[in-house]
Amino acid sequence: MLKEFEGITPEEKETLKREIKEAREKLMGQQQMLRDAKLPVIVLIEGWAAAGKGSLIKELISEIDPRFYSVVSPAILPETEERYPFLYPFFSAIPENGKITFLDSGWMESAVRKYLRHEITKKEYQRRIRQVNEFERQLRDGGYLVLKIFLHIEKKEQFERLRSLAEEPETEWRVTEEDLWQHREYKRFREEYEEFMEATGELLPWHVLDGSHRKAAVRDAMALLTGEIQKGLDEGRYVGEPFDEEFPMKEMPTLAEVDLSPAIDDEEYKKELKKLQKRLSELHNIIYRKKIPVILCYEGWDAAGKGGNIRRVAYPLDPRGFDVHPIASPLPHELNRQYLWRFWTRLPRTGHICIFDRTWYGRVMVERLEGFCSEQDWKRAYNEINEFERQLTDWGAVVIKFWIHIDQETQLARFTERQNTPEKQWKITDEDWRNREKWPQYEVAVDEMLQKTSTKNAPWYIIESNDKKYARIRTLKIIIKALEEACEKHFEEKME
Amino acid sequence: MLKEFEGITPEEKETLKREIKEAREKLMGQQQMLRDAKLPVIVLIEGWAAAGKGSLIKELISEIDPRFYSVVSPAILPETEERYPFLYPFFSAIPENGKITFLDSGWMESAVRKYLRHEITKKEYQRRIRQVNEFERQLRDGGYLVLKIFLHIEKKEQFERLRSLAEEPETEWRVTEEDLWQHREYKRFREEYEEFMEATGELLPWHVLDGSHRKAAVRDAMALLTGEIQKGLDEGRYVGEPFDEEFPMKEMPTLAEVDLSPAIDDEEYKKELKKLQKRLSELHNIIYRKKIPVILCYEGWDAAGKGGNIRRVAYPLDPRGFDVHPIASPLPHELNRQYLWRFWTRLPRTGHICIFDRTWYGRVMVERLEGFCSEQDWKRAYNEINEFERQLTDWGAVVIKFWIHIDQETQLARFTERQNTPEKQWKITDEDWRNREKWPQYEVAVDEMLQKTSTKNAPWYIIESNDKKYARIRTLKIIIKALEEACEKHFEEKME
Repeated sequence: MLKEFEGITPEEKETLKREIKEAREKLMGQQQMLRDAKLPVIVLIEGWAAAGKGSLIKELISEIDPRFYSVVSPAILPETEERYPFLYPFFSAIPENGKITFLDSGWMESAVRKYLRHEITKKEYQRRIRQVNEFERQLRDGGYLVLKIFLHIEKKEQFERLRSLAEEPETEWRVTEEDLWQHREYKRFREEYEEFMEATGELLPWHVLDGSHRKAAVRDAMALLTGEIQKGLDEGRYVGEPFDEEFPMKEMPTLAEVDLSPAIDDEEYKKELKKLQKRLSELHNIIYRKKIPVILCYEGWDAAGKGGNIRRVAYPLDPRGFDVHPIASPLPHELNRQYLWRFWTRLPRTGHICIFDRTWYGRVMVERLEGFCSEQDWKRAYNEINEFERQLTDWGAVVIKFWIHIDQETQLARFTERQNTPEKQWKITDEDWRNREKWPQYEVAVDEMLQKTSTKNAPWYIIESNDKKYARIRTLKIIIKALEEACEKHFEEKME
Repeated sequence: MLKEFEGITPEEKETLKREIKEAREKLMGQQQMLRDAKLPVIVLIEGWAAAGKGSLIKELISEIDPRFYSVVSPAILPETEERYPFLYPFFSAIPENGKITFLDSGWMESAVRKYLRHEITKKEYQRRIRQVNEFERQLRDGGYLVLKIFLHIEKKEQFERLRSLAEEPETEWRVTEEDLWQHREYKRFREEYEEFMEATGELLPWHVLDGSHRKAAVRDAMALLTGEIQKGLDEGRYVGEPFDEEFPMKEMPTLAEVDLSPAIDDEEYKKELKKLQKRLSELHNIIYRKKIPVILCYEGWDAAGKGGNIRRVAYPLDPRGFDVHPIASPLPHELNRQYLWRFWTRLPRTGHICIFDRTWYGRVMVERLEGFCSEQDWKRAYNEINEFERQLTDWGAVVIKFWIHIDQETQLARFTERQNTPEKQWKITDEDWRNREKWPQYEVAVDEMLQKTSTKNAPWYIIESNDKKYARIRTLKIIIKALEEACEKHFEEKME
């Protein structure tokens, strides 16, 4: 192993030691300020095998209270990625406000390695670069400090380090086939790392550190980290500005334009329901085998009939292959993270169906109207949500969004019935009545949401639900059509 | 496929349909009462392959609001179990108060199958049976309703069902090699199922349902479920009585008997620390390769020096192979489950080290003294915790528990110093001062805890921490010794 202070004079060694000690003390003091300022920090350490990423992280965390950081090593969870979207392990790992997450390699290594292994196509690789840029911007705009470090060593240095690890019986196991492969392919990796950093360095810069001298690398990384934190503390939490990106859109009517009269008679309903549920059950088998993930989103007026609608959709599904996620107010640990985190961590595995009973659109409805987030936050959310959903459909997911729609009179009738029926009273709360008073404001917000987020890849459907039975038949038909299309084009997309 | 109403008269068919409908309506009404009574329910459906477990669950959930139940299929997470203790997926799946978890096969299938596959020894199989009994009792004593159903079909019936699935192209994939193997080994499975049910049926009975007639099975399961819920609602939440079980114990002094004078001089400390950290780092490599899980528990007086102690232990560890879990007050979704749930879900994977900064012993300290649980609850906890820790060490984990000990004068000095040092003020709160006033009550609780839970397999160590440096050296030495022993006997244990 390399000596820690090799090739420098005793005076330089003393200086280095002092600088590290000072930076460490600074970091120790910053912990508390980070916590008070509720700033979350992500430190991504990428770099070559044997460059010393692990030991660097060890030094960085050595004086931090364990309550305030976590270390994540996506490399130890190889199977996760296979069944979830590319960004899933990284989004899942973002810290709470006031805490730090250190990543021992992350989205860069994951993308580059898969590409060089030909496990993903060039097209998919480029998509991932775009997704990384979206991800990093969303984090920054959400107030996260993101520090990206690449720990560099030359090929000769890597050779020496791998050899010295491999020759010791105690450390031999640490040199993996993957490491040896990277070493043989050093040149290709280097080109790709450089290209990746260029493609993702505009918004948040990469810091390439010389890893050949371990202690100097520690000093440099410490200086970067404490500097970044100080800047964050001085400037205060960043709130990103809204901006528009073009997405291919489906044309949507306003709520007022929707004719709510459609209805279905009982006999027809029963017949159709049975037929459609049978077909959905068959399709569930197929998407399970083809490993297509399906995400069904329900939003709508209180008492519009979401619950009953969801039950009719869920009934024919194999319970082993689907989940329903009822979304209530965020818990403290959810509130303390970027608002999409609690949805990322609830995504289905490939081949599974998940139904969200209320969704991330709370951001542009209740959070907007109740002032739970700033105006910039909810205005920015349209774009962020479109990006999020594009990441899901790029992954291969079917994403369908329903607005279960009724008029005010129907709502009143249903509220009153709930109030007067003992078994249904739990379904109606004071909050429902309060929300009802805000119908006009909600209508504005919903119309804006439908206009701005009904992308072709993840469209909204307004479901006429004055007649609940009609609504159920309609959602079933929409789901079935979308699944049939997805099953058909699944092979084509794989071949792209 | 079998006809749904085969072999019965039209009148019987009508009766059956009516009974199911009535039970379903009853269940629908019970949902709300369950929620109000905050009763959690676990429905375990075991049974033969192709007996209809999935469809039965589908029927049971069809009228339940998705917010109030979840369906768990441990079979879809085969890799989980390999790296976690046997009960991990099942404990992780327990519902919150007022909700229902349905398990599509569970601890019985998992244990029996692995035993018949010779993947676990007879000894381990018997241990698992004991663990199941402990698990079910802990759930019952913690207020859970647990309903255990075995869905039975004869060998001939299973043959017909598997054949009809295998002959349809749409369903062929559902018949797995595992199913065919079970069918060939029907007799052995039957014997083992019977034995397992006998060994685990004393406290909470098994209900064997005839699965040959699907609709009758639905009716019977519905009747059982609604009956069990009604009983739970009528009798109110069950609180288990404390009871004693014999565990081999390590002898412990009382806190008052501990001599707190040991100290270490600075030079000696630095030398020892470096040497011990190097050794711990080597051992971390070995336990990682041998896949030995390690659980280090820290409890102690406020300002005793837990944080600094933990940092010295963590420093030499590879950050990819360990986690620190700071334990604060439980979040709402944690508070709404059996108190050990939030620790079960934080267990390390095999080969990993995890450090708990405060632990499940909060139950018999702060929760006892602040009245956050009933007297029965904390008195029962000694035994439950001993069982929990035995389950961990049976799994192969090293479990070490430290009480970081100081005297009252030292605490006062440290509190005062924190109060007077701006960078340390965040470490001291009003609560710390309030707790300090309760020192005598805490001392009684801690002494009782140390006497009742210092088992030979998961012993307590009282660490003299008036001199923090001495304390750090001592914990390091204890950890190193335990890891060395574990590495040595690891092979022997595997051969048992």
